[in-house]
Amino acid sequence: MKLILNSPLDMHLHLRDGEMLKNVTPLTSDNYSAALVMPNLTPPITTKETLFKYRDEILALSSENFKPYMSLFFQKDYNYEFLKELKDEILVVKLYPAGATTNSESGVVNFNIEELRPTLEAMSELEIPLSIHGESDGFFLDREAEFIPVYEKLAEAFPKLKIIMEHISSKEAVKILDKHENLYASITLHHILYTFDDVAGGKLNPHLFCKPVLKREKDRRAILKLALNAHPKVMFGSDSAPHSQEAKEGALGAAGVFTAPVTLQALAELFEKHNKLDNLQKFVSNNAKKIYNITPPQKEVVLVKEKFSVPKLYGNIVPILAGQELSWSIESVK
Amino acid sequence: MKLILNSPLDMHLHLRDGEMLKNVTPLTSDNYSAALVMPNLTPPITTKETLFKYRDEILALSSENFKPYMSLFFQKDYNYEFLKELKDEILVVKLYPAGATTNSESGVVNFNIEELRPTLEAMSELEIPLSIHGESDGFFLDREAEFIPVYEKLAEAFPKLKIIMEHISSKEAVKILDKHENLYASITLHHILYTFDDVAGGKLNPHLFCKPVLKREKDRRAILKLALNAHPKVMFGSDSAPHSQEAKEGALGAAGVFTAPVTLQALAELFEKHNKLDNLQKFVSNNAKKIYNITPPQKEVVLVKEKFSVPKLYGNIVPILAGQELSWSIESVK
Repeated sequence: MKLILNSPLDMHLHLRDGEMLKNVTPLTSDNYSAALVMPNLTPPITTKETLFKYRDEILALSSENFKPYMSLFFQKDYNYEFLKELKDEILVVKLYPAGATTNSESGVVNFNIEELRPTLEAMSELEIPLSIHGESDGFFLDREAEFIPVYEKLAEAFPKLKIIMEHISSKEAVKILDKHENLYASITLHHILYTFDDVAGGKLNPHLFCKPVLKREKDRRAILKLALNAHPKVMFGSDSAPHSQEAKEGALGAAGVFTAPVTLQALAELFEKHNKLDNLQKFVSNNAKKIYNITPPQKEVVLVKEKFSVPKLYGNIVPILAGQELSWSIESVK
Repeated sequence: MKLILNSPLDMHLHLRDGEMLKNVTPLTSDNYSAALVMPNLTPPITTKETLFKYRDEILALSSENFKPYMSLFFQKDYNYEFLKELKDEILVVKLYPAGATTNSESGVVNFNIEELRPTLEAMSELEIPLSIHGESDGFFLDREAEFIPVYEKLAEAFPKLKIIMEHISSKEAVKILDKHENLYASITLHHILYTFDDVAGGKLNPHLFCKPVLKREKDRRAILKLALNAHPKVMFGSDSAPHSQEAKEGALGAAGVFTAPVTLQALAELFEKHNKLDNLQKFVSNNAKKIYNITPPQKEVVLVKEKFSVPKLYGNIVPILAGQELSWSIESVK
């Protein structure tokens, strides 16, 4: 049994920099046609120079026929000319609330619309979508639900701005998706596979600790349903977020799940289990192409129903499903 | 500024066995007059022989003038004669739902009253209190709240049985405390100091991961209020649960916070902060004496308002508040 995926896209990816960038870039570029690369480095990507430098580094490390879609780290005072000049070089501007996740310290503190207006108005006019990590600073499990009013406020204040609710993790986010024409969402693998019980229900599993945190079963199911049905306003974005084993384990564990090399195989297994394999092409490619109006490189990934043993480590990074067996593997890419 | 505590009691303590027992027993027996020792070893304490052996091991390792109050691991078919013979050797029978925490695999699977009746009726008649780790097998954060109906069912079915809700962690448990005359509660240090945000709100902190898990701020406050007011139906029980640093960190972290050597100092700081220092004697001793009708050894612990730097490690165990400074220290014990 085979499954051909045309130009699979990972619309939310962390490639990091330095050694980590070298190690993880091929693990995505080998099997994906393109990926949207997040800008939360230290310091974050906020200038033309750092953007181009980062893009070139990624391209130098990528397999052929792979396109890194770049992003800028949101600043409330980007001016129109600056964004206009970079419009064709970036796919989104990514907004982080300050401190919400890895390297987000310089993110937005105050979600007052008027304060954010200069950048958002320019983006709206230039048709640059806004990508958001939507979390409040409240109780860890409530943060996405508490951010919903901000999503709605932004969607209403800038009706022509495409807003991507990244890595949605709660039923509350699912609820507003169809309420506002300009709201879209990316969905990870781990948020449709697991709940926080998989982190803290038995022993503590740091390798499934991420931001936004995994939630309850009813949240997982609501998001899974969107994914399985390839709802036209959602797309796959792995949020694959590599950290070394040492950074994940130990006295203070970093947030992030490393999924990149396992995503297509695991999605095939999950979609097949729910008899929705026919929708996977839309979820991992077609929907994103329409939402972002992009034409990524042509790439054909052939999956075959043969066992794939997930490695326990990729270099010094523990992947999701480490040491487990999946029923689908990648046969060829061309 | 000094504070004298007479015969402080830790009414919920894990001393483990083997090397760990050797390392941690003095850390409690030095500063406490007595402690209620939990029976969840591997295998659990369910026989007269293992009970006496464990008690003697503890006594051999204890400082002078320390009494270990012993407990049996609940079995639904203990018979009356067996319990009668051990009545003066144990303070409680401790009930664990199967799998709820460390070494609880052989706990109770089914909370059908009729199934538990033989042991519970014998206990009621013999006036042996029932100590319960009250958690369902539901979503990790809801487990204590979901167990409330079981507490109430037991309290009603056995009105003469004293039932101790151990290490209460939720406002739901606080709510039923006064509803049933025969319900009591123990309260830990960590559940009145922290919430689950301290585990997973920023980076992941395995050293504050325990069962029952820390909950929300409103839960913390409800329990703190009981403790600060030394509500007559509550008593201090540290649930100090040592694991090696390796067992707490790493790919799968064990549940439990090691607090024993720090509890009195930290409680003094907390009670002073809330202007309730006068109630600490009741919380750490008098209440338990009345609830259990016990006369522990006479021991006077003098605390003084001088800085205490909490060690980063006790042997290979990371304590609560590791490396931090407390404003109270123990001056002398006699």
